[in-house]
Amino acid sequence: MNLPETVTVIEVATRDGFQVESKPIPTHLKVETIDALAEAGVRQIQVTSFVHPKWVPQLADAEEVCRSISKKPGVTYSALALNKKGVERAHAAGINHLDLSISVSDTHSRKNTNVSLPQAMKNLREMVDLAGQEKMELRVGLQCVFGCAYEGPIPTERVLKMAEEIFSMEIDVFSLADTTGMANPLQVKQLLSKMLPLLGDTPVILHLHDTRGAGLANLVAALECGVTYFDTALAGLGGCPFIPGAAGNIATEDTLYLLHSMGVETGIDIAKVAQCSLRLEEFLDRQLPGKMYRLVDGEAMFS
Amino acid sequence: MNLPETVTVIEVATRDGFQVESKPIPTHLKVETIDALAEAGVRQIQVTSFVHPKWVPQLADAEEVCRSISKKPGVTYSALALNKKGVERAHAAGINHLDLSISVSDTHSRKNTNVSLPQAMKNLREMVDLAGQEKMELRVGLQCVFGCAYEGPIPTERVLKMAEEIFSMEIDVFSLADTTGMANPLQVKQLLSKMLPLLGDTPVILHLHDTRGAGLANLVAALECGVTYFDTALAGLGGCPFIPGAAGNIATEDTLYLLHSMGVETGIDIAKVAQCSLRLEEFLDRQLPGKMYRLVDGEAMFS
Repeated sequence: MNLPETVTVIEVATRDGFQVESKPIPTHLKVETIDALAEAGVRQIQVTSFVHPKWVPQLADAEEVCRSISKKPGVTYSALALNKKGVERAHAAGINHLDLSISVSDTHSRKNTNVSLPQAMKNLREMVDLAGQEKMELRVGLQCVFGCAYEGPIPTERVLKMAEEIFSMEIDVFSLADTTGMANPLQVKQLLSKMLPLLGDTPVILHLHDTRGAGLANLVAALECGVTYFDTALAGLGGCPFIPGAAGNIATEDTLYLLHSMGVETGIDIAKVAQCSLRLEEFLDRQLPGKMYRLVDGEAMFS
Repeated sequence: MNLPETVTVIEVATRDGFQVESKPIPTHLKVETIDALAEAGVRQIQVTSFVHPKWVPQLADAEEVCRSISKKPGVTYSALALNKKGVERAHAAGINHLDLSISVSDTHSRKNTNVSLPQAMKNLREMVDLAGQEKMELRVGLQCVFGCAYEGPIPTERVLKMAEEIFSMEIDVFSLADTTGMANPLQVKQLLSKMLPLLGDTPVILHLHDTRGAGLANLVAALECGVTYFDTALAGLGGCPFIPGAAGNIATEDTLYLLHSMGVETGIDIAKVAQCSLRLEEFLDRQLPGKMYRLVDGEAMFS
């Protein structure tokens, strides 16, 4: 198998996970989770999203979270924004790494952000320009690239065309999201074989959901194509409030175990990460979707 | 990707799943589940296990289940046995397809069946001989081939040597089980590349658990090696009562969705299978590990 030596695992639970929890997570628990992740060796953390608190009240404390976390040297703390106001808020909060993305599904775009695809692309360009003026590092990407819960399969031509529009902007990193967890390994390899040659030296991050249980199978397919950046969430937290049946991201601990067991290094201490998940499990008072976080202290753990 | 056109999915929930449930499943629900699976297009069903009811009271109704199910033409109904008494009981109950397996881990073997590896192999040979006299079709395999929760990694040489001992017997189908869910795709490909050449024309079944979330990633790796037979369980039921932290089998619905979405046919109606899981979910009164069984009636379903 053609596997990389190292992979960068980007933790998104404090954004993608916390945004869909109905039980309000106190700010101090968010901050302690982010700080513990950095101590566990996570080098990139998507800490929050600067969205209107009317739509995502769970992340209304974005400024306070950004102000309160320990800024560990060598760790990238990023945040999401959906409009120019969000970009300005993120910059004012001291965020230097901004994550932007739009959907390739018109229906999802309208439900998620209330705009058509052309309008979303126009807004994105304005956000990229604004963030560029503020000298922020930019991760920009596409959602629902492997299918949409509303529209079904998305034509590859549309995905590639929208990607090329994004590549014409001043971005640092590109991302592809399987927002609805509809990807399969064949499709991952097919899309990446067409997408990667267009990317040049721009790194690509894959954002996978495990809605249908194929998340790690898709990760392995992407690894074999040369992708070395993946979003994951503590214990598989996450989902999308605007997509029916959307389940969590691929679980950080399951991903780490899989990578480490194949000799792919991440620099992350899986047991320390699992402690974050166990604390969240206790607070949320339910078993979380991930598998490995429950095993790291048990006899069944060998990595 | 090198994918087969068709795959045979073998349902094992009524054995591997039901044997670990603490809430007794009534015989009529077992029978109705097995009959519904056959109606859904499942062509191989491992219906029960002929083990001593003192050890596995959940399957004490093995004879009654075998007597009560509709024997749909074209469907293989198999059962497990752990000793000669079990073989005799299975034969007397009208079972023509017998599933036998032993562990490659001495510790697991002693905990699971109270015998050492050499004794287990001797017993297996006696069971194979007995079943052969009764003209039963024989599936014979190895457990814990990708690692043991007690012993950790198992030397490949031991696995290959024990496999060769089994190939010297009169068997029809061979099986490899990742009993503890410790496999990774790299390991699957490495073991299969050594194992498959020894097998000749004997088909091999892979029995995967999703203990660490890598079950479907391992399935894809095996598919690429040419394996076309897989054990799965409704909604990911299952586990092993003698292995700490052991979780369920790969979920039938998740497996079917993944295969179908890649164009690999199984002949099975996923929505009908999911109805079995939803009924078991209701009876067991808890959310089951599988993902797809909850989505088949929702908007998020496209296959």
